[in-house]
Amino acid sequence: MSSMLVVGSVALDTVHNARGTHDVVGGSATFAAFAGSFFTDVQLVGIVGRDFPDDVIRTMRERGIDTSGLEVADGKTFHWEGRYTDDLTARETIVTDLNVFEHFDPKIPPKFAETPFVMLGNIAPELQLAVLDQVKGPRLVVADTMNFWIEGKPDEVAKLLKRVDVLVINEEEARQLSGRHHLVHVAGELLDLGPSTVIIKQGEYGAWLFAGDHVFSAPAFLLEAQDPTGAGDSFAGGFLGYIAKQGNTEPDTLRRAVIYGSTLASFCVEGIGLERLLSVSDEEIAARVEKFRRLVEFAAS
Amino acid sequence: MSSMLVVGSVALDTVHNARGTHDVVGGSATFAAFAGSFFTDVQLVGIVGRDFPDDVIRTMRERGIDTSGLEVADGKTFHWEGRYTDDLTARETIVTDLNVFEHFDPKIPPKFAETPFVMLGNIAPELQLAVLDQVKGPRLVVADTMNFWIEGKPDEVAKLLKRVDVLVINEEEARQLSGRHHLVHVAGELLDLGPSTVIIKQGEYGAWLFAGDHVFSAPAFLLEAQDPTGAGDSFAGGFLGYIAKQGNTEPDTLRRAVIYGSTLASFCVEGIGLERLLSVSDEEIAARVEKFRRLVEFAAS
Repeated sequence: MSSMLVVGSVALDTVHNARGTHDVVGGSATFAAFAGSFFTDVQLVGIVGRDFPDDVIRTMRERGIDTSGLEVADGKTFHWEGRYTDDLTARETIVTDLNVFEHFDPKIPPKFAETPFVMLGNIAPELQLAVLDQVKGPRLVVADTMNFWIEGKPDEVAKLLKRVDVLVINEEEARQLSGRHHLVHVAGELLDLGPSTVIIKQGEYGAWLFAGDHVFSAPAFLLEAQDPTGAGDSFAGGFLGYIAKQGNTEPDTLRRAVIYGSTLASFCVEGIGLERLLSVSDEEIAARVEKFRRLVEFAAS
Repeated sequence: MSSMLVVGSVALDTVHNARGTHDVVGGSATFAAFAGSFFTDVQLVGIVGRDFPDDVIRTMRERGIDTSGLEVADGKTFHWEGRYTDDLTARETIVTDLNVFEHFDPKIPPKFAETPFVMLGNIAPELQLAVLDQVKGPRLVVADTMNFWIEGKPDEVAKLLKRVDVLVINEEEARQLSGRHHLVHVAGELLDLGPSTVIIKQGEYGAWLFAGDHVFSAPAFLLEAQDPTGAGDSFAGGFLGYIAKQGNTEPDTLRRAVIYGSTLASFCVEGIGLERLLSVSDEEIAARVEKFRRLVEFAAS
């Protein structure tokens, strides 16, 4: 078992949905770290303000998340506020207060520098590059979804992609980045940009993994979602956590990692904020992976 | 091996796409019959005009399609003309000339009346009901996609659904018919309308099968499509043909039937009109089913 490093945002979110208004802890690194913590030791690098609740940091530590790279700065924690439509298919951002996150300059503690598995959450690509400059010969670098950087900083994104092994990206962003429509073309273009593996997430339609000629299709898991916030981050954290636990990047490991990532994402959306991720058990995870298997299984004729 | 009955449209299509204009044989029953013919004897009931090419009828017979229920009437064959967008994601109907199809009154030849497996293509629901009044104790009745009848003839559709075992329907129509958004709710509502099995097709995202608590997810097959016309009909024909060949409707048979249907649909779209369906071999079908299996397979951790 190897450990994994997660760099990204740690936030205080206000989520409005059909059930009301919820003030919760959020952030890409938070969800990814908790999802990964089911599989391996996690090293978290991020920044919060003085208002960030101590008990969450305690919970992180109890779950094997090393928070010595979590900087506590003067000021307020990054705050995101958004409203979901009643069917949860769309969301509108109401407030994005960067606060201390505006001056985030990720510093990788020396004891984290040789961590073999690295996850770069959705932060500015020059910060992601700065992280890569501080780590020594990682075995696998995963970059998660990059929405507005694709348009805003195309050159930095291009530079980053040459140094990334696995790109995890939404279908819409993947089309935007590749300029193509059909998935097989989209994947081909993205693989040409640098990553050896591309995972295209299709939300309620599942996910695809492309690695050279190797293609894997993971189904969606049908459930009654409560709050989609953090689903993508939980996917990426579960995906990399599973790989770190196995300690290899064989094609069959990558396939299973996509299923474990999908499983963590499916639990994440069952509760508001981190709620469900903090209550789910290893047994529930194993049972859901088995459900995923049964969902797609068909015997030889 | 049991035989299957297919009732629906037989047409002469004009398809415009990025590659040009193509005058081809089409129709829901045509695609379904050819797709089913890879698995079992097919009995075709439909109507064409004097202009319908003899060599196509000869080809049907050579493939084990009994055309004694294909009425040749004075007048012209049903004609559909449409234009696809270059990325094939949308199409516009330019011409729909019903011609002899306008007075189609399906008559099931007595020798077909006891056929155990029945496919009702997309024709007016009262005609589908008339077919069911003429067949004796079918084991499985499949109704395929019903787009504009849902709005135009809701009472007849409701009446039909009570007599249908398997409803094959597009995601968009399924949402329209159920009035729900999330697939798990959509499927529940549709099952309440009568069918014991509902298949929801998601086009480039695959298909779902729901039968009571039994759920199966079939992946999409990524390919370079030439012409999507007939894909849905090929799916339904391949699905029912496979079931008829097996002669049972066990859950595992239904799962495999969805994969065989998806396989036939995937070949259909690789050529213009019937082109590819007429050239594909049993070996190619078996190889693609194996590709479908490999696409979703993941080993126990």
